[in-house]
Formats: sequence, C-alpha cells, structure tokens
Amino acid sequence: MDSFSYYNQTRYVFGHGEYRNIGNLLKGKTEKLLLHYGGGSIKRSGLYESVVNALTTAGISFVELGGVKPNPEIDLVRQGVALCREEGVDYILAVGGGSVIDSAKAIALSVTHEGDVWKLYTKEETLQTTPLPVATILTLPAAGSENSPNTVISDRASNRKLGYGHEQLRPALSIVSPELFLTLPPEQMAYGACDMLCHIFERYFTNTQGTELTDALSEATMRTIMQQASILRNEPQNEAAWAQLAFSGTIAHNNILGLGREQSWTCHALEHELSAVYDVPHGAGLAVLVPAYFDAVWQANPGIFAQWAVNVMGVAASRDTERVVKEGIMRLRAWYKSLGLPQTMEELGIPRDADFKAMAEGACSVRPGGLLPGVRVLDVTSAEEVYKNCL
Amino acid sequence: MDSFSYYNQTRYVFGHGEYRNIGNLLKGKTEKLLLHYGGGSIKRSGLYESVVNALTTAGISFVELGGVKPNPEIDLVRQGVALCREEGVDYILAVGGGSVIDSAKAIALSVTHEGDVWKLYTKEETLQTTPLPVATILTLPAAGSENSPNTVISDRASNRKLGYGHEQLRPALSIVSPELFLTLPPEQMAYGACDMLCHIFERYFTNTQGTELTDALSEATMRTIMQQASILRNEPQNEAAWAQLAFSGTIAHNNILGLGREQSWTCHALEHELSAVYDVPHGAGLAVLVPAYFDAVWQANPGIFAQWAVNVMGVAASRDTERVVKEGIMRLRAWYKSLGLPQTMEELGIPRDADFKAMAEGACSVRPGGLLPGVRVLDVTSAEEVYKNCL
Repeated sequence: MDSFSYYNQTRYVFGHGEYRNIGNLLKGKTEKLLLHYGGGSIKRSGLYESVVNALTTAGISFVELGGVKPNPEIDLVRQGVALCREEGVDYILAVGGGSVIDSAKAIALSVTHEGDVWKLYTKEETLQTTPLPVATILTLPAAGSENSPNTVISDRASNRKLGYGHEQLRPALSIVSPELFLTLPPEQMAYGACDMLCHIFERYFTNTQGTELTDALSEATMRTIMQQASILRNEPQNEAAWAQLAFSGTIAHNNILGLGREQSWTCHALEHELSAVYDVPHGAGLAVLVPAYFDAVWQANPGIFAQWAVNVMGVAASRDTERVVKEGIMRLRAWYKSLGLPQTMEELGIPRDADFKAMAEGACSVRPGGLLPGVRVLDVTSAEEVYKNCL
Repeated sequence: MDSFSYYNQTRYVFGHGEYRNIGNLLKGKTEKLLLHYGGGSIKRSGLYESVVNALTTAGISFVELGGVKPNPEIDLVRQGVALCREEGVDYILAVGGGSVIDSAKAIALSVTHEGDVWKLYTKEETLQTTPLPVATILTLPAAGSENSPNTVISDRASNRKLGYGHEQLRPALSIVSPELFLTLPPEQMAYGACDMLCHIFERYFTNTQGTELTDALSEATMRTIMQQASILRNEPQNEAAWAQLAFSGTIAHNNILGLGREQSWTCHALEHELSAVYDVPHGAGLAVLVPAYFDAVWQANPGIFAQWAVNVMGVAASRDTERVVKEGIMRLRAWYKSLGLPQTMEELGIPRDADFKAMAEGACSVRPGGLLPGVRVLDVTSAEEVYKNCL
C-alpha cells in the first residue's frame, strides 16, 4: 500500500425526508446563495417548491439558475459566475444529479478566481483562491459528486470534457433522501449503477500490492451495487434498494476505496471522449467500453482480475485463471445487458467510421506522458484498439 | 436503514515515516501544545526524540506530560488540564495508543470546561464549550481512537470506566506509520485485533433491516482484521500486515460501518466493568466475554449470526442455521485461542466469586432504561449470566 492523506469535509446527511431540513442546515452559513438546478423535473416533482419553502422559512436569500444539462457545459458555468458576482452570492446549493453538482462546483471555483474558469480545467491556469462552499440535494445517484472533490465539465466549442479536483470542492453539506429517486426512469438507474461500479474499477484494477483492506471493501461495494441495481430493475419503487444503491454510489467515489492505491481512470478518460463528441450518457459509454478494456488489459495482471471474478462476479475459484477471468468479464457483460445497457458503439449511435484515433489522442493527451495508466499502460494505438473492439 | 448524519473532521495521514512530518503539519496551528504520552516506550524506541526534533525544527513551543497508563485515569487528566491552563496550551498532541489518545481527548474537553471533567463522563454536567484540537501519532493500533469521536476514562476512586463522545473530539490530525508497530509484543497485537473486531461486532449484530452495504463493508473489514492478525502472529515484523491491520482498526471505529444502524456496545459495557474492577487489558476481557455473549443472544436473530458465520468465519452455507452459527462461534473461539487470548475468567485472573451482579448492575446503569441493547436486550440478570458463563 502507498502512503496517503485523506480529508473529507462533507457533512453527509442521509435519510427519508432529510432534504426538508435544508433551511435549518444552511441557516447562519450564507448571506445569499445560488440555487442551481437542471431542467424542469425538480419543479414537476415538487422538490423545487419544498426547497424554496425551506430556504424562505429559514430566512435565507437566494438567486437561482436552472438549465444544467447532462454533460454540463462551461457556458452555463460562466453565466453562473457572472450572476454570483453581481448578486454577492457566497454559497452554492445544487439540487440535482452529478451534472448539476459538477456545474455548481465549477461556479464555486470560479467566483473567486480572476482568470477564465475553463483554463483551470485545461491546467493553463492555477487556482490561488478558496472556492465557495457547495451544498447538494441529490436527485440521481451515479456520479458520486455529492461527496467527491471533483467536477467534470464540457466545452462544446472545443469538444473537450475535462475534470478538475480540489479538496475544498467536496461539498460542505450533502443531503441524500432515497425517496427522491423513486420516479427516475430505468435507464437512469442503469447508467448510475454502471458509473458507480466503474468508479471502483478505476481504483481496484491497478498493480499496487498490499491492499487487502481496500480490495475487500471495494469488492463489498461492487457486490452491493450489482445486487441493488438488479433489485431496482424489477422493483423501481423499492426505496430500501435505492437507499443502498445511493449510499454505495457515495462510498464508490469518496475515495475511501482508493486510498493508498495507484488509480487508473483510463475507462473514464476513454469515455469522456465519446461523451464530448457524441454526447452519449456517461454510464452508457462506460458499459460499452469497460468490457473491451478488460479484454485488452487483464493479461497484464491476471491475479487481480481472477480475484474480482471470484469475489465479485461469483465465479467458482479455479486454478484455470484464464477461464475464471473470462467468465467474470462475460458475467459483467451479461449484467450490463440485463439492465438494458448498450453493448456496442452501434447501440450507442456512434458510427463505424468515427474518428477513434482522434478520441484516443484526446484521452491520452490529458495524462502525464500521454499514456493511460492501469494494470497495463495504454498508448494512443492501444487505446484506439479498445474503441475499435467495441464496434 | 435508519437516517444518519456523518461528519469526520480528521485529516488522516498514513504511511511509512509520515510521523516525521508532524512539525510541518502542525505549523501555524498552535501557539503552544501539550505533548502527551505514556510510559517510557516512546523514549526507548526513539520516537519521542523524533517528535521533539520535528516540533523544535518547526518552531513549535510545547510542554509535556507523560505517564498515561492502560485504562487511563481521570487523575492524570486533571493534572493535564491544570498544566494546560497554566501554560496557555491550545492544542494537544498524543503520541501513543488508545489510552494516550483518550487521555488527550479528556484533557482537550476539560481545558475549556469550567466544571469537573469526570462529571461530563457521568453525564452530571454538559459541555458548553468547544474542545481543544487533538493530533495523534499512533503507536498501537487497537482502540480506533485516532479517528473516533470517543474517549474512555477510568476513575479508580469509584471503580468506574466510562465513555464520552463529541463530534469535535475526532482528532484534527491523525498520523499512522506502520513501522512504529514492529516492536509491539504479540499480546498487544492480539488485544488490538480483538478490540477492532469487537468494534465491528457492536455495530453489525443488531436488528436494523436494509443494511446490505454496511453489512458487506463490515464483513470485509472483519475478514481483513482476522487475516492480517493471523499473519502477524507468525510474522510480527511484517510491516505490510501491520499497515493493513492498523488501517482496518481505523475503519472499524470511525463509524462508517455503523451508519444508519442501531448499535449495541453491550460487550464493551460488560468489559468496561471487568477492566474497571480488575484492570485487565480491554482486548483480553473482550476475548473472554464475546463468545459467551454470542451464545446468549444469537437465537434472537439467527439470520445475522448465520450471515456472519458464512461471510466472515468461512462456514459453508447450510439450511441448518443452528449448526452454521455454532460453528461460526466455535471458529471465533479457536481464532482467539490461536492468538494466545484468554478464554475464561480464570485465565483473566478474575476469581470465581467475583461480584458479577455488581458488574452487571454497573454495565446496565449507564444505558437508557438500565437495559443493554443488541439483537437481544439484556437486563441485569441476563448480563450476570453472561459473566458467569465465562467461568
């Protein structure tokens, strides 16, 4: 295990109805906040009204900005920053899924930053100031942004989707109420579970030795995600299953499972290129890419893949490692399929003649040395092969 | 799963040699600190000198107070409080195991509190002030105090051993360097592993439903503790195993595994009475009490005990639940024995005619309604039976 330092500033509040306490929880912590959200779903569900009532009752002033889309965009972030500066906003409240939270974090970063916010993501500029605090009420468990220090933003102008991390971007307050997920469409549940699982894959499948505890914790969380998503496929209104899935999504990405390990993030880098160019749902892109990636890399570390196949996918342990690993990957594909997730580029709506070379170059370009880390390091050529093996 | 709120303020720094950074990590955070420690072991090992050098190099003023004993006592706490007030101390640095850290937390509580510190533990007084921050360098992984909000202190005058919890008592900074454990005697490793495991038992064995994630995470951590302690029994100098065991000890007690669950703490309450009267090592007392407690309560919830027997103790799943559970408990006893832990009151040096009724009354007295919670609620009579079944 490698050395590590962990600090997680989030007050994490979990339970049925807890979002109704948002006013009390923020009282005294802000002079004026930005209420940030996506489309109309929180208005249709009544959540918007509950939040506005709770803020008003607690005497908290706020301005609002809706309109965040999946794969949230830098243009709306810039609009949010201008609004916050004009209005003297000192706190951002995100009511939504990972996209809304990531957009809120981007605004929080930039209100205090004099330069251009996108240049923080491209690493052309460095943040010298402290971001504003962010609170979240989660409406879609998937991205783990409710307790992570990361934000991912897209720039349509350059077809880039890039991440940024900062310790102070973990939300100051994060509220998860599982009843808010009961009306989500089945494909959102599937995308979410797929993303959560991949957040663990990116940490689990690396070559660091002596990681027994985080291996076992990761396996426990992966099994729970798969079990609970399978329940929700048949019973989308099962609030207890939503509670387990949502809590698992937080644990999958608050980095407890990644402590002291080399991390990969190669599937995410590959997928961000797909989303940036074709605007596919992140979870759908991952379902297509992950099995092809596993096929391409498992031979570099058969031990960890066999351990996963046995401990997570329920394959019987055997001296025949190759059979064990291949059975594990096959079961993962079958599980994705059972949730209605796509299996090929075609099912994602990406043409056979897409410019996979440019995507491979894009994915590699954001990594040190232009190489994608993991159990096997991928260069542009091998990354392009992974894309092509998804045709 | 029940509702919960989680906040963990600790900056947790883990790795070989990390304790040498204590000066840099505390720089600018204190005008004068109290360096608090136990007996002479940190002086013999050279750790004391390293810490003093690091503080001095960073220009941090400090006063010191050693002499903390296992089952730390309120008298030394009072001495520490007086010293901190005289010297204007604003930060406590604990270098030691759970006893030193708990003593440091008790001092941190009381420097700002006008009343008598023991009355906070007996709940006769309520804290109105904020405790001083505490930093820790761990020398014995066991109690989990390095990342918990709890402290346990003994009062010899009244033969009481009581706990106190406060969110601000989680250390501000916690450093764990596994090489510091290489010289620990084997019985300390065994006591520590036993205590860690019991911190999970107290959370795992309750009747809360819908706890799949924390069940699985708990099982993962229990298995890791048992595996790594078994390695250390044979290879006490295995630093990688110490790293896994120590990290597991932190996870076992920072309450991630207990979120949204009813918790028991009945074995701890029963053991604190033994330690208070006979001053036995906490881990040794637990090794004797836990299997007898399991025998006494498993029938109230055979499902969770069978789940544990299969998922943690490696018993083959079977429709014969009773056989599975009894095999699981038998394997736990065998594992304790393999670590050299005592199995009976006699081996603990506690006489057959000890006043178990008074101990049962003591354990029950600190709980609401005078009853010990868990899968089966114990009253004074049934608690006394658990003690007597350890003869």
